[in-house]
Amino acid sequence: MTRVAHGAGRRLRVALDAMGGDDAPAATVAGALLAQQSGVEVILVGDESRLAALPDDVDATMPVLHAPEAVSMDEDPALALRGKRGSSIRVAAALVAQGGAEALVSAGSTGATLAAALLEIGRLPGVRRPAVAAALPGGAVLVDAGASSDVQPEALIAYAEMGSAYARTRGVSEPTVGLLNVGSEPGKGNAFARAAFDALTGTPSFVGNVEPAAVLGGAADVVVADGFTGNIFLKTLEAAAAPPAGGPGAAILLGCASPVLVAHGDASADNIAAALETARSIAEGGLVQALLQALGRAGGVGEPARG
Amino acid sequence: MTRVAHGAGRRLRVALDAMGGDDAPAATVAGALLAQQSGVEVILVGDESRLAALPDDVDATMPVLHAPEAVSMDEDPALALRGKRGSSIRVAAALVAQGGAEALVSAGSTGATLAAALLEIGRLPGVRRPAVAAALPGGAVLVDAGASSDVQPEALIAYAEMGSAYARTRGVSEPTVGLLNVGSEPGKGNAFARAAFDALTGTPSFVGNVEPAAVLGGAADVVVADGFTGNIFLKTLEAAAAPPAGGPGAAILLGCASPVLVAHGDASADNIAAALETARSIAEGGLVQALLQALGRAGGVGEPARG
Repeated sequence: MTRVAHGAGRRLRVALDAMGGDDAPAATVAGALLAQQSGVEVILVGDESRLAALPDDVDATMPVLHAPEAVSMDEDPALALRGKRGSSIRVAAALVAQGGAEALVSAGSTGATLAAALLEIGRLPGVRRPAVAAALPGGAVLVDAGASSDVQPEALIAYAEMGSAYARTRGVSEPTVGLLNVGSEPGKGNAFARAAFDALTGTPSFVGNVEPAAVLGGAADVVVADGFTGNIFLKTLEAAAAPPAGGPGAAILLGCASPVLVAHGDASADNIAAALETARSIAEGGLVQALLQALGRAGGVGEPARG
Repeated sequence: MTRVAHGAGRRLRVALDAMGGDDAPAATVAGALLAQQSGVEVILVGDESRLAALPDDVDATMPVLHAPEAVSMDEDPALALRGKRGSSIRVAAALVAQGGAEALVSAGSTGATLAAALLEIGRLPGVRRPAVAAALPGGAVLVDAGASSDVQPEALIAYAEMGSAYARTRGVSEPTVGLLNVGSEPGKGNAFARAAFDALTGTPSFVGNVEPAAVLGGAADVVVADGFTGNIFLKTLEAAAAPPAGGPGAAILLGCASPVLVAHGDASADNIAAALETARSIAEGGLVQALLQALGRAGGVGEPARG
């Protein structure tokens, strides 16, 4: 199989965790081939022997980086990542960290992708925990859609900054920020939501609490929540057959030093292809640089922090 | 206007907070008249002068209990209830407590209804906080759908018991119980969800974590959550246009010493009528007695605990 050359001066390349997802590697490889037809340069990372056994002749068309192990959905992400240095998601993240690709896509466990990104790619300065950004029906961006279930209320300030930077790259010039809550009035919600409301009150773009119906109605461009509440909200939308449509084909891990996208575990080949195309356009569009500016560290950035 | 006689030996009567809800008292009175046509005996509680000004001639057809004040949606419920002894929701709850009606319905603030129920009607023995039960698409009962945002994980044991008792009155012989969570595997969720999982693990009917899609797919007959998470879930379902259909027309406050139902703030006359009919059938069906048995206090129950 073709080995990956870590050369400079190439087009932007996207590393794909070929073993991540319910239907991997069949769906991931099929999605990679589709994206390739759209001009995306993809590097497959996974078990060479399993990839070679597929009917698609990936060997002839696409670079493959061998990774002998894989992380399953029911493993503890952090433990699995530390134990499996040869897992496809970790090898793919390391490839990005070493400059062999400019973005990462996985349909495997979000926790494992986050852990691999933290270990290998690292965070942007000023980011304690990356957060998942998901595009919602109605156009808003939800942050955090499921990366970190237990955070301090103050973490939502960084989510607001990162979500606003992301919204600006999507063409929203002055994004407003709302807090996902059970009622619109100040004082609504649980202790966390009330503390988060207070923490966000100093943010000029903050428009207050937004109920689920208001979120879908476009009451704010950026909607922030802890990752547990955000994930319940997102999964309920999906379950009620209002899937985040027109979205990027995958959610984005905001706060990593390179673009990292997590696709659904049941992603189809089309979903994988859409995620790969989004990854390329995000890398080309300079989202990481926009995040750096939003986080107030635009000048004199050295090495990104490592997990 | 007709004064209410607190006589015994009458048919089951439902007290309606005529001033609660966005379109009160027009919608509440219209709903009461509809329910009356279905044979529900309704007692209107509200401002006599405002009720008399309506085109419907309620005076001639329905008993009215005067209450000079009302609680608005943006007031702090507990403060408002203590300050406004003459508020319609408090007078209606007191009517039930005194035996002048057997059930209570309000489309006003859930918090104010809960506070009035705690102050006047009281809790069943063994219940620390009443919880809202809502019937979901797919048939499951969600407890707590929004009464208490901040509770201890152990509170969900009582929610499971009360929800199971309610499900049995709805014809489910051996209800299963699931914990609303972001994933199905043990260990998923935030710190609260993990602690609640551990607390529920001793319950024989507990089937583990259930994701939003599994809830709608009928993975458990009773779904328990803290009131914040449950309310986010319910409001997201409603916002995604999958309103809890085939439901009772209102959510039920489980754990009060008499049946108390909270209708939506934007309830129509039809919704109010459905809530009144549900309240009557719940009172007739002996839900409170079933809850008492479920809570293990079936024998020798004295006075219910007061707020």
